[in-house]
Amino acid sequence: MPTLSDLRTPALLLDKGRLQANLDRMAARANALGVNLRPHMKTAKSIDVARAAIKGQTGGITVSTLAEAEYFARAGFTDILYGVGITPDKLADVAAVQALGAELSLILDNLDNARAVAARAAQLPGPFGFLIEIDSGQHRTGLLPDDDHVLEIAGLLHGAENCQLRGVMTHAGHSYDCASIEAVKVVAEAERGAVVAAAESIRGTGLPCAIVSVGSTPTALYAEHLHGVTEMRPGVYMLGDLFQHSIGSCGLDDLALSVLVSVIGWRGDEGRAMIDAGSLALSQDRGAPDESGQHAFGMAVDLAGKALPGQPRVRQTNQEHGFLPGLVEAPQIGQRLRILPNHACATAAAYDCYHVIDENGEIIDTWQRTKGW
Amino acid sequence: MPTLSDLRTPALLLDKGRLQANLDRMAARANALGVNLRPHMKTAKSIDVARAAIKGQTGGITVSTLAEAEYFARAGFTDILYGVGITPDKLADVAAVQALGAELSLILDNLDNARAVAARAAQLPGPFGFLIEIDSGQHRTGLLPDDDHVLEIAGLLHGAENCQLRGVMTHAGHSYDCASIEAVKVVAEAERGAVVAAAESIRGTGLPCAIVSVGSTPTALYAEHLHGVTEMRPGVYMLGDLFQHSIGSCGLDDLALSVLVSVIGWRGDEGRAMIDAGSLALSQDRGAPDESGQHAFGMAVDLAGKALPGQPRVRQTNQEHGFLPGLVEAPQIGQRLRILPNHACATAAAYDCYHVIDENGEIIDTWQRTKGW
Repeated sequence: MPTLSDLRTPALLLDKGRLQANLDRMAARANALGVNLRPHMKTAKSIDVARAAIKGQTGGITVSTLAEAEYFARAGFTDILYGVGITPDKLADVAAVQALGAELSLILDNLDNARAVAARAAQLPGPFGFLIEIDSGQHRTGLLPDDDHVLEIAGLLHGAENCQLRGVMTHAGHSYDCASIEAVKVVAEAERGAVVAAAESIRGTGLPCAIVSVGSTPTALYAEHLHGVTEMRPGVYMLGDLFQHSIGSCGLDDLALSVLVSVIGWRGDEGRAMIDAGSLALSQDRGAPDESGQHAFGMAVDLAGKALPGQPRVRQTNQEHGFLPGLVEAPQIGQRLRILPNHACATAAAYDCYHVIDENGEIIDTWQRTKGW
Repeated sequence: MPTLSDLRTPALLLDKGRLQANLDRMAARANALGVNLRPHMKTAKSIDVARAAIKGQTGGITVSTLAEAEYFARAGFTDILYGVGITPDKLADVAAVQALGAELSLILDNLDNARAVAARAAQLPGPFGFLIEIDSGQHRTGLLPDDDHVLEIAGLLHGAENCQLRGVMTHAGHSYDCASIEAVKVVAEAERGAVVAAAESIRGTGLPCAIVSVGSTPTALYAEHLHGVTEMRPGVYMLGDLFQHSIGSCGLDDLALSVLVSVIGWRGDEGRAMIDAGSLALSQDRGAPDESGQHAFGMAVDLAGKALPGQPRVRQTNQEHGFLPGLVEAPQIGQRLRILPNHACATAAAYDCYHVIDENGEIIDTWQRTKGW
C-alpha cells in the first residue's frame, strides 16, 4: 500500500473509523425510531460501504441511477429502490437488472406516465414494483398526498399486468434549507405526515401500501417520531461534509471524506498556495457561505486531518488548480494537505476509488466506486 | 447503434461535423499566425478527438493530468506537455509514462521546487524536459518575465543531470474575464509579450529556449499576431459551450457537445419540467449570468439541436434532477431534449464516452474518454 506521502494526488480518502461511527449513529437512530434503514448509496456508490451500512437492517438500499442499480445487483444486493422518476424507455434496462437477481422498486408521480409505464411493463418480463412519489414540501417532484391522482395511480398500478403497488415515498430535500434543528423537526414531521396520509388514503380504498418511505439525512437525525413510516433513506450521513456540518447534521470530526492534495505553487506576497485539486477534484459545489458570507470549495486540514490555523479554505478553482489563501506558514512546494469537501456526493463523484485510512492515517484498503448512468 | 430515442439518458453527445468545423477553424488560425497548434486535451480527453485535432500539426498535445498523459502515451502520442506545475513526488510517474515511449514537457515556476525536482530527476531514468511557467497577467501561477528567478531556474535546469530546459509557457486564463473582443486582443498581446520577453531574456544569457508557448481559446482566436511565439495550446474550442459563446469565442451553432436527457416530471401549474440530468450530469458550473442576471446550468434545445421557444434553461439542479422552467408546450413524461452545457470541460468530465452523431442526429460512433488523476 502507498502512504499519504506517496499516493499520487489528488486522491480521495475515506476514514474507516469515522465512517463506521456515522453508520452506527444512523443505525441507532433507525432503531430508536422503529423503522428500517434503507441507506441511499448515491453518495458513497461503493459495495464495501453499502455492506457496512446495511448491517443489522433488512438489506435494502436506495440508488440514484440505473448504473448503480446494476452495480449493486451484480454484487448480490437484491432489494433496491431506484429513487429517480421512472419513464417507459428505462423499463427494459430495469428488467435487465432484475434478471441479475435483484428486485427493484420504481417511483413515479404522473398519471399519464403511469399508464405508459404500465403499458410498457406488460411487454417485458416482470414483475415491476412501484412506489408513488409524494411531495412533502420540497416541491421538486411528487404528488400532494390529497391529490386525486394518488389513488388513480394506485388503482391503475395495482390492476396492471406485471405491476405491483408497493407503497409511497417522499424526500424532504428542503430540510437542507433549514436554519435550525427546530426547523428540521418541523420539516421531518411534514415529511412523515405527507406519506402517512397518502398511505392511509390508499389503504382506505382497499389497496395495499406496504412501504411508507421517507428520507434525508437531516430529517432522519432529528425527526421526533416516525409513526406510520416503515423505512428511511438517508445517504450523505455516511461520509458527512462541510454543508452537513453547517446545518448541524454532523460535527467537523465526523467528516469521513477528504481529498489528498499537493501544494504546487506559493505566492509569498499574497500568502496564497496553489494546490493540485481544482473544480474537477473538489467539485464546483459552492456549499453554504461561511461566517464572512463568502463561498469556498473546501477547507484545508493537515495530513493528520487536524485543523490548520485560521481554517484556510479553497477560495477559487480552475479545472486542476485550487487557490488556497490564508496559510499562516509558508508551505513547501510538494507539501501535502487534505481538503474537507463542501458536498460529499459531488466531490466523491469524480473518483473511481476510495483510499481507506485508519485512525493513524495509514492506508489500509482500496474500495472501488461506481459512477455514470 | 442505438438512436437518440433509445439511448439511455443522460448521455453525452458529440456532433462530429461541428467538432470538425471547430478543429478546422483553429488549425487555420494557427496557420495564419504562423505557430504550431498543441491542442489542450483537458476538455475532450479523447484519443479520437486528439487525432483529429493534430491533423496538419507536429503532433504535440497538452494534458492536464498524469492520467491523461498515460492514456495518450499508450495511444502512441509522443510529444506531451503536462500543463500543471510539477512536484518532485510526481517525477517517478512521469518517468513511467516516458517509458511508454512519450516525451513529456513539465512546467514549474519556483526556484526551491526546481532544485528539489532536479535532485529527484537525477535519481530516475530521464531525461526530463522543462518549460518555465510565466505569469502573463492571470496571477494564478508563473513568474513575471523579469523575475530574477526565471534566469536562475533556467540556469539550474540547463545544468542539471537528466534535465533539459526546453522553453517558456504561459496561460492567459484572464481572457475569460474579458467583456469584449477588443479586451481579449489586449490580453493576447500581453500573453505574447510576457513569454517572448522571458524567452529573449533566457536566450540573452546563452541558454536555449526553443519553445515559446501560449494558450487559451479566446486569445488564440483573437490575437492580432504571435511574433516570437512557437505554439499555442487552446482546448475548449473543439467542443465550445455557452460560456465561450457568451464571450464571443463561438456561435451557438458551433457547440458540438450536448447532454441527451429525458423529461421525468411536469408541473403544469408552474410550467416546469423535471429532467433526469442534475448536478452530476450537467456539472455545477454556473457559467455566465444571462440577460436577466441569473445563472443557469445549461440551455434546452430539441432533439435535432434546434432552439426551443424562449430558450429555456436549467435553473436548478439536485444530484440527478434538473429543474427546467419556461417550456412553452407541455412535454410528455419520457420526452427527450438536449442540454447545451455551460462549460464543456466540466460537463464532459462526468462521462466515460461520447456518442458521436452526424448532421442528421444519427449515432455513428462511440468514442471513449479518460478521466481521473
